[in-house]
Amino acid sequence: MIKGIDHVAIAVKNLDEAVNTFENLFGLRPSRIEDIPDQGVRAAVIHIGDTELEFIEPVNPNGGVARFLETKGEGIHHICLEVDDTDEELKRLDAKGAKLIDRQARKGLAGKVAFIHPKSLHGVLIELAQKA
Amino acid sequence: MIKGIDHVAIAVKNLDEAVNTFENLFGLRPSRIEDIPDQGVRAAVIHIGDTELEFIEPVNPNGGVARFLETKGEGIHHICLEVDDTDEELKRLDAKGAKLIDRQARKGLAGKVAFIHPKSLHGVLIELAQKA
Repeated sequence: MIKGIDHVAIAVKNLDEAVNTFENLFGLRPSRIEDIPDQGVRAAVIHIGDTELEFIEPVNPNGGVARFLETKGEGIHHICLEVDDTDEELKRLDAKGAKLIDRQARKGLAGKVAFIHPKSLHGVLIELAQKA
Repeated sequence: MIKGIDHVAIAVKNLDEAVNTFENLFGLRPSRIEDIPDQGVRAAVIHIGDTELEFIEPVNPNGGVARFLETKGEGIHHICLEVDDTDEELKRLDAKGAKLIDRQARKGLAGKVAFIHPKSLHGVLIELAQKA
């Protein structure tokens, strides 16, 4: 079951510059900046109302976010939906024929996470996250 | 002042297909489907937690959303931030040198709205919306 939008992620070349821009223009300040080695990124999380914006800068030049920047440039990267049980959702989505990027939930910044391929979702990369 | 994320908009070629896909895979159903002539789109709004996903299909082949689909394909199109006063925000952003698409708020689906150019915002198209 989808409980809400956990965050919307924005891929940027330089995390500090992006954070400065959004602080300068909108007064939005990150509550934390973290390395997420398994996704090959450094991330800044900005709480905004009941959801979050997340800026991600690739630290691994061979990772998905680095490839995204090379092909599409900076911009909105994915939407993360909060779910009750990521593994259950993956089973259900697999049975319905959705193209999964992760076949099993793994530990991410937002909890137990998994990505669904944009080919199944009208070009939208969706992350599922089950909070700790 | 930024009060929250009003919605995240997804540009699609066929609104009904996109709505069916997200209902089938995630159980998400639109609460309303509306024409927004001044933006040249038909839109489906899905409440999700305290925010919304909005699918938009161009009905005007010369509009911005049609051009987006031609050049980038289907995918996440913009983030809408709720503000207290759209015209005040535009004045403030203009004074800070942000590139504005709309210099004055106009009536949109989400209230009194205006768009800020992605060139000023690390590739992110931002809509501001002041609720009615």
